[in-house]
Amino acid sequence: TDEKAEKEARNHMDQLTKPLGALGDLEEIVIRLAGITGETVPDIERKGVAVFCGDHGVTEEGVSAYPAEVTGLMIGNFSRGKAAVTVLARRFGAEVSVVDVGSRLEPLPEGVLDRKVRFGTANMARGPAMTREETLKALRVGADLALQWKENGIQLAAVGEMGIGNTTSASAVAAVLTGKPVRELTGRGTGLDDDGLERKREVITRSLEVNRPDPADPLDGLAKVGGLEIAAMTGFILGAARHRLPVVVDGLISTVAALAAVRLAPGVRACLFASHRSAEPAHGVLLEDLGLKPLITAGMRLGEGSGAVLAFPLFDGAVTTAKEMATFSELGLNG
Amino acid sequence: TDEKAEKEARNHMDQLTKPLGALGDLEEIVIRLAGITGETVPDIERKGVAVFCGDHGVTEEGVSAYPAEVTGLMIGNFSRGKAAVTVLARRFGAEVSVVDVGSRLEPLPEGVLDRKVRFGTANMARGPAMTREETLKALRVGADLALQWKENGIQLAAVGEMGIGNTTSASAVAAVLTGKPVRELTGRGTGLDDDGLERKREVITRSLEVNRPDPADPLDGLAKVGGLEIAAMTGFILGAARHRLPVVVDGLISTVAALAAVRLAPGVRACLFASHRSAEPAHGVLLEDLGLKPLITAGMRLGEGSGAVLAFPLFDGAVTTAKEMATFSELGLNG
Repeated sequence: TDEKAEKEARNHMDQLTKPLGALGDLEEIVIRLAGITGETVPDIERKGVAVFCGDHGVTEEGVSAYPAEVTGLMIGNFSRGKAAVTVLARRFGAEVSVVDVGSRLEPLPEGVLDRKVRFGTANMARGPAMTREETLKALRVGADLALQWKENGIQLAAVGEMGIGNTTSASAVAAVLTGKPVRELTGRGTGLDDDGLERKREVITRSLEVNRPDPADPLDGLAKVGGLEIAAMTGFILGAARHRLPVVVDGLISTVAALAAVRLAPGVRACLFASHRSAEPAHGVLLEDLGLKPLITAGMRLGEGSGAVLAFPLFDGAVTTAKEMATFSELGLNG
Repeated sequence: TDEKAEKEARNHMDQLTKPLGALGDLEEIVIRLAGITGETVPDIERKGVAVFCGDHGVTEEGVSAYPAEVTGLMIGNFSRGKAAVTVLARRFGAEVSVVDVGSRLEPLPEGVLDRKVRFGTANMARGPAMTREETLKALRVGADLALQWKENGIQLAAVGEMGIGNTTSASAVAAVLTGKPVRELTGRGTGLDDDGLERKREVITRSLEVNRPDPADPLDGLAKVGGLEIAAMTGFILGAARHRLPVVVDGLISTVAALAAVRLAPGVRACLFASHRSAEPAHGVLLEDLGLKPLITAGMRLGEGSGAVLAFPLFDGAVTTAKEMATFSELGLNG
């Protein structure tokens, strides 16, 4: 990060007509964006959300309240602009890229980027979800999009996902990366009842026993118990960080992808922002591990990047105060 | 509240293409707005923030990090659109009314509504801040503005304030209304050091002893240890609730005004929404007392209505998902 730009941004915020630090985390946003971009008052007018989609073989174990076909139906819903993340992105002026990195849907509807690595993962409860090579291909899909966005002038990115079954995969990867117990990291996803939650925990535990992913090798966890869209988000974040494109993470699944990226390259953390704290119990644990503080606590658990896009206006608010507020000296006072 | 509209709104949200309840508190916002307005999918495109301004005689006790003259300087800053709340309101498409209900500033800059009841309150550490009659006049200023906004088509209101010394008054009123200890309800305001914080607590304790406000009579507390802008916000909220105009409260001071309004007329609570949880320690206590859950936790402590306006886009996001998302039956699924 650019420490000089950070310092200049902090000085600038301290001169504005408000008590020192009174805009709280909004000031930290401006200062951190300055550090990433090298601009004292960063510009984030062009924003985008990348929604990576993939199917999960583990759905045959009955770990989701919804059938696997909903992944494909929701890809159609994104394409028509009628899902939560696309509605919010339109409202807040953000561009949307829907990237099929591994759904079972074919053919793809209009406007969806075809980057399919395979037609859904294998069932991780019986063996590896995918190969290491497939995982690397999915990472590359994400990293390539981040580079393309940077070249196209996107200034603030959000990542999200769609994939029935993917809170199961995400909790499994979280267990590998954090070493915390499965029980603590597993939630109800899209709405499991008590029996479903117990089954989900049992399936995750079994998947970890069957595959024995190496905690010291994040790619191994992503391959064996992760997912194509999770790996693609990890790749996106790695690529974005390399090109100094700040990334806002969403809920449990994108935050697991972020943690994998940080384990692969710790410097990536400097480009990451939290948006909200979701209702999934593991999410808070992962945000703390990453040292990220969410702005919004609204009990959301929708995924798609919806919480990250909902936070975009708060970033706009932060940058706009930095740009448009008067300074104390303009007011005739020494701040 | 209109229970039929609430029920219809809940049914509508349940049919949208997301897991049941997955938009969390955003769904509650839509449902509560439906209950207030009687529309299943409420419209909140026209928003406004009312910033009530007043001076405080208690500043002569040295309870603020800023001199009392800053109230007047900030009124000028609002008038020029260069303060945090005006910058945020412009960004998010909200109208601003700056209402001088009791500052010492004269003449008032362009665009500021002159509703001055008196030139600042008296020093509450030596006697009542104002008379009961002045308090009622200030309430009326707020109530009249709420009616005018409703007639002009404003659909969602925020309240905020400016008045050097007003966290001292607000904490004193909070102590009267909640019965909780002054120590627990008093924070650093615009940035007091440890000695300043001790002095502020001592001044509040002394003010309560000198004036002995009646806890069962909220007007008595507002008059003796409150402030003109606090009373005006209470009046605004009472008027808004009568005319079914939903109101978003900001930080400590506006939330104290809201609590006074609810103590005067408990039904008012149905029209109130929280925005953020501020860094002032009493704020969380008051929100809990009111049963309001903030959406944003960003450590802000600026006042002016800035946190309430920052939350406006989250309300927009909630209503926009209700309006624009597909239903499960459109997707070919039974939700």
